[in-house]
This record gives sequence, structure tokens and C-alpha cells, in this order.
Amino acid sequence: MSAENQPLADQSPAELAAFLAAQQQAYTDLQGKGLKLDLTRGKPAAAQLDLSDALLGLPTGPKDSAGVDTRNYGGLEGIAELRAMFAELLWVEPEQVVAGGNSSLVMMREVLTDLWLKGGVDSERPWSQEEKVTFICPVPGYDRHFTLLDWFGIDTVTVPMNSDGPDAEAVAALAANDPSIKGIWIVPTYANPTGSIASLEVAERLASMPTAAPDFKIFWDNAYAFHHLTEDEAKSADILSLASAAGNPHRPIMFASTSKITYAGAGVAFLAGSTETVSWYTTHLGKGAIGPDKLNQLRHAQFFGSAQGVRDHMTQHRLIIAPKFDEVDRVLTERLGGLGVASWTKPTGGYFVSLDVLDGTASRVVQLAKEAGIALTPAGASFPKGDDPHDRNIRLAPTFPEMGEVSAAMDGVATCVLLAAAEKLAG
Amino acid sequence: MSAENQPLADQSPAELAAFLAAQQQAYTDLQGKGLKLDLTRGKPAAAQLDLSDALLGLPTGPKDSAGVDTRNYGGLEGIAELRAMFAELLWVEPEQVVAGGNSSLVMMREVLTDLWLKGGVDSERPWSQEEKVTFICPVPGYDRHFTLLDWFGIDTVTVPMNSDGPDAEAVAALAANDPSIKGIWIVPTYANPTGSIASLEVAERLASMPTAAPDFKIFWDNAYAFHHLTEDEAKSADILSLASAAGNPHRPIMFASTSKITYAGAGVAFLAGSTETVSWYTTHLGKGAIGPDKLNQLRHAQFFGSAQGVRDHMTQHRLIIAPKFDEVDRVLTERLGGLGVASWTKPTGGYFVSLDVLDGTASRVVQLAKEAGIALTPAGASFPKGDDPHDRNIRLAPTFPEMGEVSAAMDGVATCVLLAAAEKLAG
Repeated sequence: MSAENQPLADQSPAELAAFLAAQQQAYTDLQGKGLKLDLTRGKPAAAQLDLSDALLGLPTGPKDSAGVDTRNYGGLEGIAELRAMFAELLWVEPEQVVAGGNSSLVMMREVLTDLWLKGGVDSERPWSQEEKVTFICPVPGYDRHFTLLDWFGIDTVTVPMNSDGPDAEAVAALAANDPSIKGIWIVPTYANPTGSIASLEVAERLASMPTAAPDFKIFWDNAYAFHHLTEDEAKSADILSLASAAGNPHRPIMFASTSKITYAGAGVAFLAGSTETVSWYTTHLGKGAIGPDKLNQLRHAQFFGSAQGVRDHMTQHRLIIAPKFDEVDRVLTERLGGLGVASWTKPTGGYFVSLDVLDGTASRVVQLAKEAGIALTPAGASFPKGDDPHDRNIRLAPTFPEMGEVSAAMDGVATCVLLAAAEKLAG
Repeated sequence: MSAENQPLADQSPAELAAFLAAQQQAYTDLQGKGLKLDLTRGKPAAAQLDLSDALLGLPTGPKDSAGVDTRNYGGLEGIAELRAMFAELLWVEPEQVVAGGNSSLVMMREVLTDLWLKGGVDSERPWSQEEKVTFICPVPGYDRHFTLLDWFGIDTVTVPMNSDGPDAEAVAALAANDPSIKGIWIVPTYANPTGSIASLEVAERLASMPTAAPDFKIFWDNAYAFHHLTEDEAKSADILSLASAAGNPHRPIMFASTSKITYAGAGVAFLAGSTETVSWYTTHLGKGAIGPDKLNQLRHAQFFGSAQGVRDHMTQHRLIIAPKFDEVDRVLTERLGGLGVASWTKPTGGYFVSLDVLDGTASRVVQLAKEAGIALTPAGASFPKGDDPHDRNIRLAPTFPEMGEVSAAMDGVATCVLLAAAEKLAG
């Protein structure tokens, strides 16, 4: 067995020194290529956006099926046909869904603002009047969730994100005893960045667990509900029904959007919850909003035609992006396999690959990549306050670059991973 | 002189009794017509919305002039060409403008949220940490402003809205001595509902007056900046330059939108202020938003072509709605002139006519109108907490109904005004 496919940690000092020298040379070569690649964010590629360009000629007329002129003011809850379409997709009733603007993140901020200033349907007081408010954050997770919590001054406590979703027992133990623990933020299907899928069992546990706070919330950010990478399409647990059956109907608030179905900047976002939650949300919304862009909602309703139209459309996305994920796995396996310096996910959906490198080297890898012209999400981004306690997780976002760029970027990343590992082990 | 065109208050008891009986009969006749008319909100008519239907076929391609793919994520501050276009219209620099989503009201709520939770660029602390926060509200004014202040728990103090804008001396006196007074909300051009235009002198006074609060804000809601009803087009005072020249560059925050230029539900909203204000706003916005609907911004930029394109487009609106305002004045003059029971504005722009009826009868007029099938904005809506101390102001919104409906509605309103006045004077 050559040094090349033997775990680095088992190699002799001489072998390691040779390995380090080889990687230094490889890195010098990499820098010589003058790359300029960006794998930082989960953005659709132009070819994916092109799939929806029929939107540019829609709607065919300004009125929705109820005869509402979508060009004018009003309709806080969104147009009926799009609510019905996404109610079917999200397994809820149409009156449990609000169709909003172009961003589910904005809807999440609105919900947090309302909870903060007014309290929820089951709150004893506004959250801003609590001594302390804490959210449970499965890690690795989505940086924008953490940023928003931090903006509100909400504390965070982490639990592991397992392959079947958040560690439900850890969540239940935290929520049971501490009334300052007010919620958890979950990407249930094809999680960012691990690709985990919350199982029915995990969802059921979270929906039914006793919580010290009477107004504990599950922010169920189902951003990738329909974003399959294989023909084996995961079905999200029906969190609203589970919570309702457990006597906690107002606990989950679900979010989704077409940002990665049609246009990332010009899609439609959705909120779903109990009818009381929906009424609570629209009542507060109505204090400072007149209505969403209903015309864009009509554009989307006509474009999809039906819930099945959405599903069919997602197949076209899969055909474009699944090969990029395959390529990430191929290059990483070829370059890093057997060396014991990295592991990575092979997601069946979503937008990310979660790469764990040798403890203590993630920041170095990102720095090396940057200096070789490859922009990666900052190390630690998948942890609250950007603090990865092991400095090992890196989020890879392969959808936006062209296939050739994915290959080049992953090859470069592999070189950086190896160099950082060799530096550490030889150091 | 017959009783018909003599001030009601000067008529003898017998004349008044006869007048009352005549109005009761007229009202019974009105009810018999089975009207169903709505003058509640300032909504564009379908014919106005039709003016912008070329939008439905735009944009011609997804990239803006800087080569940005507007379909994808990003660009918190909006696309460059639309910012530049509205910077020209609003007399500011492009970097002082943010192009946002479909609602300037939402931008105002965002700004209030940021001030409340974080404080402004010149605040000593977040407004939520102040003992008390008070806004100055010129009355009559815009109900949605008052609703939003109330939602935040911000107190209000009123000043008169004069024909040249808010009573600047009253504002200055309030702001000079009380540090809890943090701002004023103004519709400077063609105010809602009076049609007043804030003069250069008033604007200069507000921009330069000493304020006890270091972070006093002028919310300059220029919703009707280009919405002229005559060929004599008012120019809004350049509040940003005035404030900057007076050493208070961060005092004004300007808002505008195309809601009543293109589509009320699917337009583009704008915020403008000092570059520090813009940076403050986008920094906070970026904690919970990725970017506005840039595609709709590009659609608008292509539709208008230039700032002059916006002005030309507004002429088409004027040709549709000015005759409706003329009709309001014609009917009210014919039915109410000389009787001393009502006065009303004859605005040169904007969306409203402000009708003052006999003190203590506005609620009765609105109730009578409702029972005759004519929906009016609730009496008192133009005052904070819906409380018109004289119960005399009614806001009329004649743009949405067809011309024939405007005539019928105003004739009906006149009957209600006369009946309520006769009831009161004879009672």
C-alpha cells in the first residue's frame, strides 16, 4: 500500500514530509491556474432559471380565478389558487397557507418580529419581555437562521443534526425544563447543509414533546421540500397534523418558497400553520402591509397549472443539478478517499454537500482555497455565531457553477484539504 | 333668497323643519336606488392599471444593464438603473436610494422596526429602550401611518395640517423641548387626505429646527410626488438637501413607490436618505432578507425607459382621474354650496378629497351613507386612534369608481350630509 491511499495519521514522519511537499507543490500549481470560482451560496444555475422563463410572458390576464384584479391593492393572504396549490403540496388546508412576497426569510423575520413585539397565539407575553429567549439550533445548520436570531438578541443552544434530523432526545431534554427555550429552527427535508431528512419519528417527538414554554415554536423551514436529487423522493413529515394530534396545534410554523423552483429572486414564499397562527400572522402583517405581489402569484399559478406541475418542474431541476453533486462526490472520493482526513455527505436532495475535514483545519482550508481563487462559505458558517467548535465543517454549494467549474473547484478544494491536513499532521 | 341656498343655521325653525322633511324624503329615495358603491380607499381604477399592461410582456431578458441576472438572489439595494431613474425623480443621488419590494408601507415598517430594536444612525439607544416614544402627526392624515405607530406602542401628538403643509411652528415647539418626540410622519406632496403641499419654507423649518431628540426623524412619505391633477405640477421640497445643509443629514427618510404609477399591488417601492441611512437600512435588512424582486424592478425600468417616461406616464393617469375630482367638486358645490354645512378641498394632485361636514355629524353621515349602499372611509380615520375630536372629517376617494358611480356616490353623500346637518340643527 502506497502512502497515497493509507490514512495520513498512520504514515511515518518521512512519508508525511514527502506528502506535505507534494501537496505544497500541488497547491502552487493550483494557484498558477488563476481560478475564479464561487461555491459560497446555494444559488440556482442560469440553466435552472431558464426552466421558468415562460413566466416572463405570464400572466395572460390580470384576474385570478376568483375574478380579483391582481394588479390592485389587497389580499394579504395571497390569491386563492396558489394557496390551494401549495396547500396540496405541503399537505395542509388552503386556509392554513399564506402566499406572500419573494422571500420566506422575510416571512420568518416577520414572524420573529411579531413574537418579539406581541407574542404568539399561545404566549403569556411578548418575547421581548422575557428575561431571556433561547432557540435550539441543530448543527451544522443554516447561517441565515443564526444571523437572524443573533439580530434579535436571541440566544442559541446547539444539538447534533443526525441523518434522521435533529437529535430529538436532546431537543426534548432542553425544551422540557427551561422555559426560556422558545423554539427550534429546522430544515426538515434535505437540510442545509447536511442533506438530512427529519424522520416521521423525529417529527412526532418534536411535535408532541412537553415543553416548559407554553409557546414553544418549531420553525419548519421546508425550503427544499421538493428538491430531490434522486428518483427516490423524500416525503416531509406532516408536522402540522402531528402537532395538532398531540394537542400542540400552534407549535409548528412552516415556511416554503419557489425561490429554488422558479426564480431565486422573483418567486413566491409561503407560510403555513394552524388557522389561528395564520390569522395571527395576517392580523399583525396588516398593520404595516396592504398585500403581496398577487400578480406574481398569478404568474406562478398559471405557470405551474397544478401541484403536479410543480413536481414535474422539479424533475427538470434534478436533471441539471444531480450530475454536479455526483461530480463533487467523484472528485472528493478520488482525491481524498482512504486518507482519513475528510468525510462528506452524499445528499439525496437539497443544495449542499457538508464536508468535514481534519479537526482544526477548516479555516485553513477555506483560506487556502480563497488564495487559490476558490470562494467557499466561511468556515464555521453552519454554526451559531460562526463558531464551529471543532473547526472542521465546510459547506459546499455546487449548483451555481457550470459542470467544468465544479470539477475544477472540487479538485482545488481537495488539494487544500490535503495540504491543510499535511501541515497539521506534520507540524 | 329661498331656503335652499341660505345657510342652514340662519333658517327659521319652520324652514328647518321643512328642510329636514325634504332631506328625509331624499334619503328614502336614495335608499330605494339600491346603490353599492365604494369610496373607501385610494385605489387606482382598472383603466389606470391598464396603462401599464405593457409590463406583462417585460422584461425582454433577465439581465439588467450591469449584466446582473435579475432572476437570481442578491442585490439588497435594488438594480442600478431603477435606482438611478428614481434618484433623478426624487432629486437625490443614486447611492441614496434603495429600490425594494412592492410596498413602501412595508419599508416604513422595516425602518420603524430597526429604530425600535436597534436605534438609528444617530440614536443613543434603541427606541424600545426609551421611556416613551412620541410621533407628531399632522391631521387630518393617513390612517395607515397611525395604525403602524399604534402597533409599536408609539404615542402620537397632533398638529394642524395647513394648506402649506404641517404647522411648522407647532411642530418646532413640540420637538424643541421634549426628547421623547422622535419624529413626524408627513405626506409632503398632495397630502392624504387634504391635498396640501408642504412649502419650501415649511420643509426648511422642519429640516433645520432644533430637536431635543438627537435622532429625530422625518418620515417623508412622498406617495403622490408625481400624481398631479392639473398641468401645474407641484415640485416637492428637496428635504434631503435642506436637512443636510442644516446639519441634520440623517433626519429625513424618504419613501415613494410606483403603486399608483404602475400597479398598486405589483409595483416597486423606494427608500431614500443619507448614505449612512441607506447603509444602516440595508445592513439591518440583510439580517433577514436576500434581495428584492429585481426582475420586477427590471420590468419597471424597461417600461419607463427614463425618468421622463415616468412623468409622461403620469399625464395619462391625470387624464383619467382629474375628471372624477372635477365631478366630486361639481356635485358637492351644486348640492351643498351656500348652505354652510360643509367645506371640502379641491386638490391639485393626489388621491383624495377631504370633506369637512357640520361638527358632530361625520359619523352620522358615514352611517347614513353605509345604509344607503355607499361605503365611505370610517369617520375619524384621518386621526390617530380614529378619534376626530370634532367628528367632522370624511375622506373621499374618487379614483376607483367609474365616472357614473362617482356622480351617484357624491350625490348620495350630499344627501347624507344634508340630512345629518338638518337632524342636528333641528334636533
